[in-house]
Amino acid sequence: MSLLVVGSIAYDTVETPYGNRNDSLGGSALYFSAAASFFTPVNVVGVVGSDFDASKISFLKKRGVNLDGMYVESGDTFRWGGRYHKDLNQRDTLFTYLNVFENFQPKIPAKYKKADYVFLANIDPELQLQVLEQIDKPKLVVLDTMNFWISGKRRTLEEVIKYCDILIVNDEETRELTDEPNLISAIRKLASVEGPKTLIIKKGEHGAILYHNEKYFFVPAFPLDKAVDPTGAGDSFAGGFLGYICRQDNIEANTLRKAVVYGSAVASYTVEDFSFDRLQALTNEELDERFKSFKDLTSF
Amino acid sequence: MSLLVVGSIAYDTVETPYGNRNDSLGGSALYFSAAASFFTPVNVVGVVGSDFDASKISFLKKRGVNLDGMYVESGDTFRWGGRYHKDLNQRDTLFTYLNVFENFQPKIPAKYKKADYVFLANIDPELQLQVLEQIDKPKLVVLDTMNFWISGKRRTLEEVIKYCDILIVNDEETRELTDEPNLISAIRKLASVEGPKTLIIKKGEHGAILYHNEKYFFVPAFPLDKAVDPTGAGDSFAGGFLGYICRQDNIEANTLRKAVVYGSAVASYTVEDFSFDRLQALTNEELDERFKSFKDLTSF
Repeated sequence: MSLLVVGSIAYDTVETPYGNRNDSLGGSALYFSAAASFFTPVNVVGVVGSDFDASKISFLKKRGVNLDGMYVESGDTFRWGGRYHKDLNQRDTLFTYLNVFENFQPKIPAKYKKADYVFLANIDPELQLQVLEQIDKPKLVVLDTMNFWISGKRRTLEEVIKYCDILIVNDEETRELTDEPNLISAIRKLASVEGPKTLIIKKGEHGAILYHNEKYFFVPAFPLDKAVDPTGAGDSFAGGFLGYICRQDNIEANTLRKAVVYGSAVASYTVEDFSFDRLQALTNEELDERFKSFKDLTSF
Repeated sequence: MSLLVVGSIAYDTVETPYGNRNDSLGGSALYFSAAASFFTPVNVVGVVGSDFDASKISFLKKRGVNLDGMYVESGDTFRWGGRYHKDLNQRDTLFTYLNVFENFQPKIPAKYKKADYVFLANIDPELQLQVLEQIDKPKLVVLDTMNFWISGKRRTLEEVIKYCDILIVNDEETRELTDEPNLISAIRKLASVEGPKTLIIKKGEHGAILYHNEKYFFVPAFPLDKAVDPTGAGDSFAGGFLGYICRQDNIEANTLRKAVVYGSAVASYTVEDFSFDRLQALTNEELDERFKSFKDLTSF
């Protein structure tokens, strides 16, 4: 089994009610692979600038994240800045400097083309299509996207969606994609168009819904008194989810359910501190413990 | 075991995306007792006007709801009008005519004073206090309230809260009561002040949280493609919840959890049609079936 992720590698500047961080490690590809690395090796394809400090990602290499597909281009690394409100579900983007990411054309190294499991992180759907054209019949392709692409590049996005097996979106995006105010109807409608029949709907503090085989599975967000920095929660979720599936190497209903719980568990650790601080210190034992505690949160 | 509810009896005029109803049966005490009647007999204390058509509540009497405490005063019955948006979580109140409810002074009939389980539906906290003064050491008092009383009669409400065992509020009200944006911190804070250590937080389409013995239990809302009329969902939830507890006659943690699921199940039926239309047709078998389906919605 092999797992491939294509996405962004970034320096994030974040302000939250608990403090600030400047130019800390971020990006969808890195959050995804840090989370997935608790289950399986991960191959990353992305781009950084010549300013990128490779020593910052040595912890990922130690965890089995292969960064041979991380291209270094002259120029600066992608930078994003955001400010979270007191209600952490609300945030303002302060700046987005694409830098070397602006001309990124994902080139999948030959040895990654036969990846079994692929995660297309939230990037321009045209780049996602380019990735799909280069890879060789994977067992499962999971797609993440956002409202920016839904309104800006809908046609291309719909093309990408057709070739994916699982789509991860949030509740607002589900409503937007289907023009349905009732989330449950929206989910059914989204699953009825050409494309993935399995959907994951992220609802932030309200948890997530897995829709698979026309059945719903609900998982709450782990109850945290203090979410320090929500950046990377969605990508960590995806990493825990697909990492677990890759390790189990099957996509049966109960594997998907457990994968959603592992995704929620690892994401809940991500937000406990800034950047990768908590994920770097996290152990497999802690992750398994939190997985188990989800049983107690929902069983009756 | 006996169960007492004190609350409103009303005629509701509602507009939803699925249609309109004029002067249909409503009110917290009736929704509560209709739901609780699937588990146990219920005693109702409330007031109606001389215009009230008693034939409309014969279905409740058949189900074991005792309405000897429903006083008839000269004047009109309480009327409420509301319009739900396409997103049913949003509604506008079109009118509120208190009518005979304006001078309501709940008088608990002697035979109800030894009630084991008591539900103080969402009415003026001064009236809730009057009820507490008349009853005789019940096993459990469950309190419902709303933002209107939190901002308008906070002192009196805090007095009522002190004497209750379980408080039911929604997520916004929890934040408002504690001035905490993080819901989980807000729940802990609310449970730390004098008053109930057991809380139920209703989150509408996102389900509910039970906080008991410093542990969280999450239940999703039953996934419905079409919620026709949300009126009465909260009171039906409370009725299913407390009705089940009364039948079991214990307040152990797992009883409370199952009670929350039964509350969610019966509320999900309430919203499937206008007014009491669905509850009137509902069978115990259907209710048990939906209870069981909640296991499938959350198990992994």
